[in-house]
Amino acid sequence: MEIGIVIGTVTATRKDEHLVGTKMLVTQPVGIDEKPTESQPIITVDTVGAGVGESVIFVKGSMASRAVHNKDSPVDAAIVGIIDVLECDYRKG
Amino acid sequence: MEIGIVIGTVTATRKDEHLVGTKMLVTQPVGIDEKPTESQPIITVDTVGAGVGESVIFVKGSMASRAVHNKDSPVDAAIVGIIDVLECDYRKG
Amino acid sequence: MEIGIVIGTVTATRKDEHLVGTKMLVTQPVGIDEKPTESQPIITVDTVGAGVGESVIFVKGSMASRAVHNKDSPVDAAIVGIIDVLECDYRKG
Amino acid sequence: MEIGIVIGTVTATRKDEHLVGTKMLVTQPVGIDEKPTESQPIITVDTVGAGVGESVIFVKGSMASRAVHNKDSPVDAAIVGIIDVLECDYRKG
Amino acid sequence: MEIGIVIGTVTATRKDEHLVGTKMLVTQPVGIDEKPTESQPIITVDTVGAGVGESVIFVKGSMASRAVHNKDSPVDAAIVGIIDVLECDYRKG
Repeated sequence: MEIGIVIGTVTATRKDEHLVGTKMLVTQPVGIDEKPTESQPIITVDTVGAGVGESVIFVKGSMASRAVHNKDSPVDAAIVGIIDVLECDYRKG
Repeated sequence: MEIGIVIGTVTATRKDEHLVGTKMLVTQPVGIDEKPTESQPIITVDTVGAGVGESVIFVKGSMASRAVHNKDSPVDAAIVGIIDVLECDYRKG
Repeated sequence: MEIGIVIGTVTATRKDEHLVGTKMLVTQPVGIDEKPTESQPIITVDTVGAGVGESVIFVKGSMASRAVHNKDSPVDAAIVGIIDVLECDYRKG
Repeated sequence: MEIGIVIGTVTATRKDEHLVGTKMLVTQPVGIDEKPTESQPIITVDTVGAGVGESVIFVKGSMASRAVHNKDSPVDAAIVGIIDVLECDYRKG
Repeated sequence: MEIGIVIGTVTATRKDEHLVGTKMLVTQPVGIDEKPTESQPIITVDTVGAGVGESVIFVKGSMASRAVHNKDSPVDAAIVGIIDVLECDYRKG
C-alpha cells in the first residue's frame, strides 16, 4: 500500500453503474515525510470515511475492489485506512 | 483510477473476438490541471459514452474487464466515468 | 492497452508447459506517432496473426491470459489487435 | 518479488475491517547492494515476523493477499520472507 | 513478459509456507541487446531449471503464480522460459 493525502473530490454523473453511490476522492501520493512524490494524484474510492487533508493508506490494483466489497466494481485504487502514527526511525548503522 | 482526456479513436479489423463491437478510444493521462502528464496515451475501452475532448476517469489493470461486463475480455484499461467537477483546493497549511 | 510495433521473434525450447505452441513476438511500445517510447521492448504472445513490422494493440497484466484462452498460462502481455487506423486530431482549444 | 529493508511502522485506527489485526510495516525498496532505490517506501503487511532493520522479500499486487491468507483483504504488498543470504556474483564475461 | 539474465540466488529460512521448496533467483532485467536496463534486479521463482548467467523470459504480476502451479503462492515474478534465439531485425523503413 502507499501513503497519500486527500486533496480533493471528483464528481461524475455519467459513470459505470457499479460506481453509483461511491465516494471518489483525489489523493496525492506522498513520502514518509508527507511531501508529494513525483507521482500524479489519483482518484481513489473511500470506504473508511476519509476527508480532505487527511493522511491515508491506499491500495492499488485489483485488490481495491475488495475494499468496496464488490468484485464487479471497476476500481483500481481505494483508501483503506487513515494514518494515526507513522514511525520511521531506522537508519542503516 | 486516473484522469484523462480522450484524444482520438482507433480501428482494428483483426482483433480478439471479445473485442469485436467494443469502442476503443485513445486517452491521454492528465494531471488535476488537465495538462498531459509524461505518461503515453493509452487505448481505453469506453462504456459510458465518452467522446473526443472529454475529461474522463479511467481504470487500469484487470478490473477494467469489469467495466466491459466480460471477465474474458482481454482489456486492461477502460473509461468508467465522465468528469463533471474536479475540486482540489487543499494546500498543506 | 498500449500501442506497439512488432520488431522480432524469440525462441525458447525450455519453457513452461502452457507456453508450448505459443507464438512469442518482441514488441516495442510506441507513441501515437509510432515512435518508440522510453519503455523497453517486451515479449508478447500473439493470437491475431501479427507479423514483424505491424502496428498492434497489446494488453498487459493478468488479462493477457484471456487473449490466449488459457487462464493457467503464465503470460502477462498479449497482442489483441492489429491497428488499421489511429486518429488523434484533438488539441485542447 | 523485490528486496526491501523494514524502516518503520504505521498505525491506523480507522481502517478496512479485513486489515484489523494485521501488522503493517514501512518498507524501503533496496538494490542488491542494500542501498535504497529511487522507489518510495511502501506499506507492507508482515506475515513472517519481520522487524525494523531486517532485509526482506516482499511481493506486490494481488498475490499479496495470498500471503495474508485472505483473498478479501485489500492489500497489495506483503513481506513473504526474511533474507539470509543474497549472492550475486555473475558478471557478463 | 520481459527479458532478463539470472545474476544470483537468494536464501530465506523464514518465509511464507507456500514458498518452502521454491528456487528463488535474482534476475536483472535486460534489453534486447542483453544490456541491463535501469530497472532493479528482482527476485523470481524458477520453474524451468534456469541457472546463473542464462538469458530468460520472466512473467510479472499475478500470472506468475500460474508458473508455480499454485494459485495460493504469493509470488509476483517467475521465470517461464530460457531464451535460445532472440531475433530483432526490424527497422522502420
